Amino acid sequence: MDRMWRRIGRIVLVTGLWSAVAAQAEIPKETYEALKLDRSASPQQLYEALVKRYKDPAEGAGRGSHAQYWKPIPFSKYLDPHSFYKPPATVKEVASREDCVKCHADESPVWVSSWKKSGHANLDRIRQLAPSDPTFYKKAKLEEVEANLRSLGKLGAGEALKEVGCIDCHVDVNAQGRANHAADLRMPTADVCATCHVQEFAERESERDTITWPNNEWPKGRPSHALDYKANVETTIWAGMPQREIAEGCTACHQNQNKCDTCHTRHEFSVVESRKPQACATCHNGIDHNNWEAYSLSKHGKITEMKGSEWNWSMPLKDAFAKGGQTAPTCQTCHMEYQGKFSHNMVRKVRWANYPSAGGVAANITSAWSEKRLEAWVKTCTQCHSESLARSYLELMDKGTLQGLAKYQEAHKVVEKLYADKLLPGQTTNRPAPPPPDKEGVAQFFQLFWTQANNPSSIEFEVIEMGENDLAKLHVGLAHVNPGGWTYTEGWEPMNRAYSKIMSEDTKLRAMASLQERVAKLETRRTSLLEPSDGATRASLGGLGGALLLAGGAALAIARRRGKDAD
Amino acid sequence: MDRMWRRIGRIVLVTGLWSAVAAQAEIPKETYEALKLDRSASPQQLYEALVKRYKDPAEGAGRGSHAQYWKPIPFSKYLDPHSFYKPPATVKEVASREDCVKCHADESPVWVSSWKKSGHANLDRIRQLAPSDPTFYKKAKLEEVEANLRSLGKLGAGEALKEVGCIDCHVDVNAQGRANHAADLRMPTADVCATCHVQEFAERESERDTITWPNNEWPKGRPSHALDYKANVETTIWAGMPQREIAEGCTACHQNQNKCDTCHTRHEFSVVESRKPQACATCHNGIDHNNWEAYSLSKHGKITEMKGSEWNWSMPLKDAFAKGGQTAPTCQTCHMEYQGKFSHNMVRKVRWANYPSAGGVAANITSAWSEKRLEAWVKTCTQCHSESLARSYLELMDKGTLQGLAKYQEAHKVVEKLYADKLLPGQTTNRPAPPPPDKEGVAQFFQLFWTQANNPSSIEFEVIEMGENDLAKLHVGLAHVNPGGWTYTEGWEPMNRAYSKIMSEDTKLRAMASLQERVAKLETRRTSLLEPSDGATRASLGGLGGALLLAGGAALAIARRRGKDAD
Amino acid sequence: MDRMWRRIGRIVLVTGLWSAVAAQAEIPKETYEALKLDRSASPQQLYEALVKRYKDPAEGAGRGSHAQYWKPIPFSKYLDPHSFYKPPATVKEVASREDCVKCHADESPVWVSSWKKSGHANLDRIRQLAPSDPTFYKKAKLEEVEANLRSLGKLGAGEALKEVGCIDCHVDVNAQGRANHAADLRMPTADVCATCHVQEFAERESERDTITWPNNEWPKGRPSHALDYKANVETTIWAGMPQREIAEGCTACHQNQNKCDTCHTRHEFSVVESRKPQACATCHNGIDHNNWEAYSLSKHGKITEMKGSEWNWSMPLKDAFAKGGQTAPTCQTCHMEYQGKFSHNMVRKVRWANYPSAGGVAANITSAWSEKRLEAWVKTCTQCHSESLARSYLELMDKGTLQGLAKYQEAHKVVEKLYADKLLPGQTTNRPAPPPPDKEGVAQFFQLFWTQANNPSSIEFEVIEMGENDLAKLHVGLAHVNPGGWTYTEGWEPMNRAYSKIMSEDTKLRAMASLQERVAKLETRRTSLLEPSDGATRASLGGLGGALLLAGGAALAIARRRGKDAD
Repeated sequence: MDRMWRRIGRIVLVTGLWSAVAAQAEIPKETYEALKLDRSASPQQLYEALVKRYKDPAEGAGRGSHAQYWKPIPFSKYLDPHSFYKPPATVKEVASREDCVKCHADESPVWVSSWKKSGHANLDRIRQLAPSDPTFYKKAKLEEVEANLRSLGKLGAGEALKEVGCIDCHVDVNAQGRANHAADLRMPTADVCATCHVQEFAERESERDTITWPNNEWPKGRPSHALDYKANVETTIWAGMPQREIAEGCTACHQNQNKCDTCHTRHEFSVVESRKPQACATCHNGIDHNNWEAYSLSKHGKITEMKGSEWNWSMPLKDAFAKGGQTAPTCQTCHMEYQGKFSHNMVRKVRWANYPSAGGVAANITSAWSEKRLEAWVKTCTQCHSESLARSYLELMDKGTLQGLAKYQEAHKVVEKLYADKLLPGQTTNRPAPPPPDKEGVAQFFQLFWTQANNPSSIEFEVIEMGENDLAKLHVGLAHVNPGGWTYTEGWEPMNRAYSKIMSEDTKLRAMASLQERVAKLETRRTSLLEPSDGATRASLGGLGGALLLAGGAALAIARRRGKDAD
Repeated sequence: MDRMWRRIGRIVLVTGLWSAVAAQAEIPKETYEALKLDRSASPQQLYEALVKRYKDPAEGAGRGSHAQYWKPIPFSKYLDPHSFYKPPATVKEVASREDCVKCHADESPVWVSSWKKSGHANLDRIRQLAPSDPTFYKKAKLEEVEANLRSLGKLGAGEALKEVGCIDCHVDVNAQGRANHAADLRMPTADVCATCHVQEFAERESERDTITWPNNEWPKGRPSHALDYKANVETTIWAGMPQREIAEGCTACHQNQNKCDTCHTRHEFSVVESRKPQACATCHNGIDHNNWEAYSLSKHGKITEMKGSEWNWSMPLKDAFAKGGQTAPTCQTCHMEYQGKFSHNMVRKVRWANYPSAGGVAANITSAWSEKRLEAWVKTCTQCHSESLARSYLELMDKGTLQGLAKYQEAHKVVEKLYADKLLPGQTTNRPAPPPPDKEGVAQFFQLFWTQANNPSSIEFEVIEMGENDLAKLHVGLAHVNPGGWTYTEGWEPMNRAYSKIMSEDTKLRAMASLQERVAKLETRRTSLLEPSDGATRASLGGLGGALLLAGGAALAIARRRGKDAD
Repeated sequence: MDRMWRRIGRIVLVTGLWSAVAAQAEIPKETYEALKLDRSASPQQLYEALVKRYKDPAEGAGRGSHAQYWKPIPFSKYLDPHSFYKPPATVKEVASREDCVKCHADESPVWVSSWKKSGHANLDRIRQLAPSDPTFYKKAKLEEVEANLRSLGKLGAGEALKEVGCIDCHVDVNAQGRANHAADLRMPTADVCATCHVQEFAERESERDTITWPNNEWPKGRPSHALDYKANVETTIWAGMPQREIAEGCTACHQNQNKCDTCHTRHEFSVVESRKPQACATCHNGIDHNNWEAYSLSKHGKITEMKGSEWNWSMPLKDAFAKGGQTAPTCQTCHMEYQGKFSHNMVRKVRWANYPSAGGVAANITSAWSEKRLEAWVKTCTQCHSESLARSYLELMDKGTLQGLAKYQEAHKVVEKLYADKLLPGQTTNRPAPPPPDKEGVAQFFQLFWTQANNPSSIEFEVIEMGENDLAKLHVGLAHVNPGGWTYTEGWEPMNRAYSKIMSEDTKLRAMASLQERVAKLETRRTSLLEPSDGATRASLGGLGGALLLAGGAALAIARRRGKDAD
């Protein structure tokens, strides 16, 4: 009887709270539609629908379609725990909630000291927040978390969550008993975090639904954090390359699909940290997507560097400018914003997707799909700028990107033609096939990471980088208002450097082929005059091509025949 | 009667105040001479003389001498408002001082929230500063500003400036009425800021007068912030290149001549910000003038990074070390200093001007002109170092720079010789002329930003970058005491890399030419046996490509004939 | 009598204190053994033994074995004061302790203002520290310093050190009289600092003893700070290159052997500063050992950037995590740690020494020597991570490094073969010898810093950088958990870029040689019709240049003759 009443009470309570929460939620309607739920769905319903999809290999979970080509290394279990993590067989301890903390304070002390600073270890501090505190919003968040747990049957109706300790994430949320390291331990994946943080997980997972490209310029739901592991394992060269320790370097960033702690570093899980632009920097930097470098050199980034210590980073993003004193944008205030609201979906305004050379992206840039997203950007920029400035700058960005693209395409054609003419160094004599699932082709992405003998030629490498790296940086420089980033240091000047290399190399390769032909002609004609063809000499002609020998041979045959005909 | 007295009073007051202020002013005598004023000139006289010169196209204002070659893009109005800004025709509102703030708090909220933090919005806070406050100096500055406005007739004798709001900068200082967006709005240029900040403007404008090169190594008054837009529009490739959105990336930095807000970011206009080295970083970085990278990797920069949070950045530069606790230099403490005083003229100690390859600069480095500037540097360095250390280091810097220059010159001669010998790939067959106003030439600056077919060859690109970029970075590394910056990471090692490429390429191009000649001889001599020498064919053998095909065709024709003859 | 008692008292006191101190000391036993001391040695004994070795040219002090090849420049006196510093002859002042400060407050004010912030200028503040103060440990340190000075006879038994001022370091510790600038001034070297800081000096000097390589993969005691100047002057190209101002850029970092102030910047000597990762950055960055870039882009580095301002940097390293609140590692917490203790010996866990291509290092990586060091790393990492994560990551690091090494070795063989075949551009015609003590060879380190004519060829430069720079960065990226640092931006992709360049160049050089041979054969065979084969001419045809001219000449002679013959 008592139990029945508790249960009824729980349902009432949960429903009531959830409605309130859901009203504020930034989960896009596309996701409710994809999951076949409506907004009145309970946390449990939402959680279960999300997790079902999340764990479904057909929806991008796990090793992907090239699984036959690659093997995990020991470290892989930390990058894709669902596929590879096994509890440590050698650790025999069976431990209670308190034992975890006590023992690991010696074993791995910074785990414990970081956690002790976290909200997880200080739920009561959150409960006692005064409305005047900038972090007062956390109190509502905690209530929402408890409502989620109650909906999932993991917390009693009147029960308060005491703490989130080791055992909650690594064994089971609100676990009461003792856990066996060798059997019960889990490496928390995003769905584990979702047990409490349904909304944030749903926002993140909504990236799958909101970035559906009009002409499949990119695969559905990509590029995004939600499917970044899938993007990784579906990349042919990633799967095929023999150097697995190098390859797992890619995964070291492409693991957001699997885990939340690349942005919310364990075990402090500081939101202040995750609001700072540096939180994105470890992955979003470098030769092919220098977002961090471009931003941090821009005036936006430099103001953040100079003035950021005066801003109140405890404010949630929506209050960062108005109440936090922020006077320049961060990664988060631009990329997590959509129509004035902030969420963990970072791809709702994606237009160029960092890679202007990706097939169809440029052609799509003036489509209605893209225009709608451009309008959303205008709204973002007008937080700090006039509409006129925003529009004229975004136009500059688009046009500048197209100018870079044209340069790249011009150079690419030259390399393609060389390949068609079989003139790349060693192309016909010493160009091994790439490891499967990759296949022979000119100027392929795989050639940046797999090279053997004359595959690829240096001129191909040049043009691949021109598109994958230089052009990407040109666009990123434009997008982040870093002038040297599209004009001189990165972008245009390096693209012209590459272009000049490609054109000089083209001219030289063709000059060489021409000269080789002339020499072959001299050899052939002479031979026919004076003596039988010298097979041994011809066979050693080396580097150059069987093709040329063949050509030479053909010429010889023609010359002979002609001699006859002329008779 | 009353009015007359007010006017007299105003004159007395203004004169008195101005004298006091002028006594402290750091405006160099060269500027008074250039403007044909003496130091007793009133703010109005000074302002008017400065602004007249500032707006004079003959003195560097506006689109420059290549205006016929280029068109502005929509964003250009923010880079050169004098030439291109038009108020937004679509915005119909007519607004009062208060309306601006109220409406834009919704329209572009960070404008308003930034401004609310500024001194502009808090003049009374400045008036109430206690003498013990490190920013007490601002009180005198405000009085100076009011004196300026009175001198210009923009403030009554007894009138205090209430605030500097949107309307003051964007319509008219101390405007009292309502303004029409579509008609009255202006985009503030440096002369607008000068209405209040005459002294700072005069200091900045004095760069035109204090950097007159003894042998015109650089144009008068350059390089400087005061004429950086002129430098931009007078650059032939900037004017000639068709990619205007790329080109305006240059202008994004080269706009200091036109505006003050690249250092004093709108709308907070924080002096603390403008005193931090990052304020200079967005422009002074990168492949051709890596000042920021060199400084921030140097011990100077790293101390600032490590200890800067303990320093009081509210102190004016002159007190930064003594009272602000600063223990390492910033861009500002070295480059804004001259003979112990600080001003907005940053070029009084310029000797190498970042570009050791610029004509005549190296030869001038031991001139009396340069020596005087070296002595000023010694004085700068001895704030923190012994004279002996300063002198020996500056000697190291000069000699190291000359060593880099010699390496560059050696490589340049090799490329020049190839050009003279017509041996650059495609030089005689496929080298289109650059867009005007640029002209054909070997290893030209324009070739970094405009490439087509075989103009330039990759070896030219290499040697241009060696001088424009690697040598510049070598010098900048030396100048900012970043050891890896002149020795290995940047500077010397990259210059040797480029040198080795140029020398190998030279050897290979000449070997190829030699072989082509030998083959041509073989072809010709054979012909000479049989028929008169074919002068036309031989004359085209210097070029490759098409010419070679022709030669091939000729050879074929000869072969045919020979078949006959042999019969 | 009184004096005798004082002396006895002093001995008792010193011995007592020293024992206590020595018990805590982190000086490795290897050093006591090397110095033939036991742990009961007095500070004086330890100091004298250390300094004797430190100043011994046979043990690495001074100009080194290539001294005949190079001359110091004026600035060298600041890099190796023992060898080159002379007091300034032009400064005549004879000054007391107080005079120094007074006069230099005008002469070089930041010396004085920095010093005034230092512990050196505030010994009494240290004496009054409360046990609750995080810097209370400094009180014991001060007592240890005084014990050292008493042991060395530089402080009376009951005497307290009043301050450490200019004169103490620049003339003599606890000097009482007046000093003559022109005669008495010294530039403090590490042994001067050691007068007070015996333990720290001993720790640093212990690097000589703890990094003895099992198969002399590196010279004894290197790489280390303790012998970094020796490493510099023993580098043949450093000694041989004519550009001394460039060369001294190397020394600007390689001076830790001689001085302490590259980490402990004069004159504040802030320990807070020396605990921050930026303290290492000015030297440990760049193309060949990008430790700073790799760390600062890693999550470790970025957390430090985001959260470091909340940590208490006043804590000594041993308390940084537990009491200082640190939640991510710095250079110092990993590299100064060994078996849970922290010292100035930073090489006890060195395994790869940054340079996987260094001879024997890779082969040694699974030796017992290396395994012991790997275990020490596991202990370091488990401060924050599980043992399983640590071991699997370190395995990833080792294997990834070996994958990079294999790629480098493959390319290196191709270049070696070209050299053996005399096919490098200009190899036989225009390849001058390097300056002594360097000698001719293929793909040598010296070629990065000395280039002339065709020494080295660009393909050699490519492969040297592949090993010295790209492979080093690949390893450093792995070691500092910067994914882009070993996968794409640095490391693997650039190594594949270099590989493709080397393979294409190899193919092209061999094609050219082949064609030259064919042409020579055509020229010769033609001759053979008419006259005996010209063996001498043919033998030199592999080389270019002069040989080709000869061949051309020969061909001309033949043509003439043929003309005649044909008549």
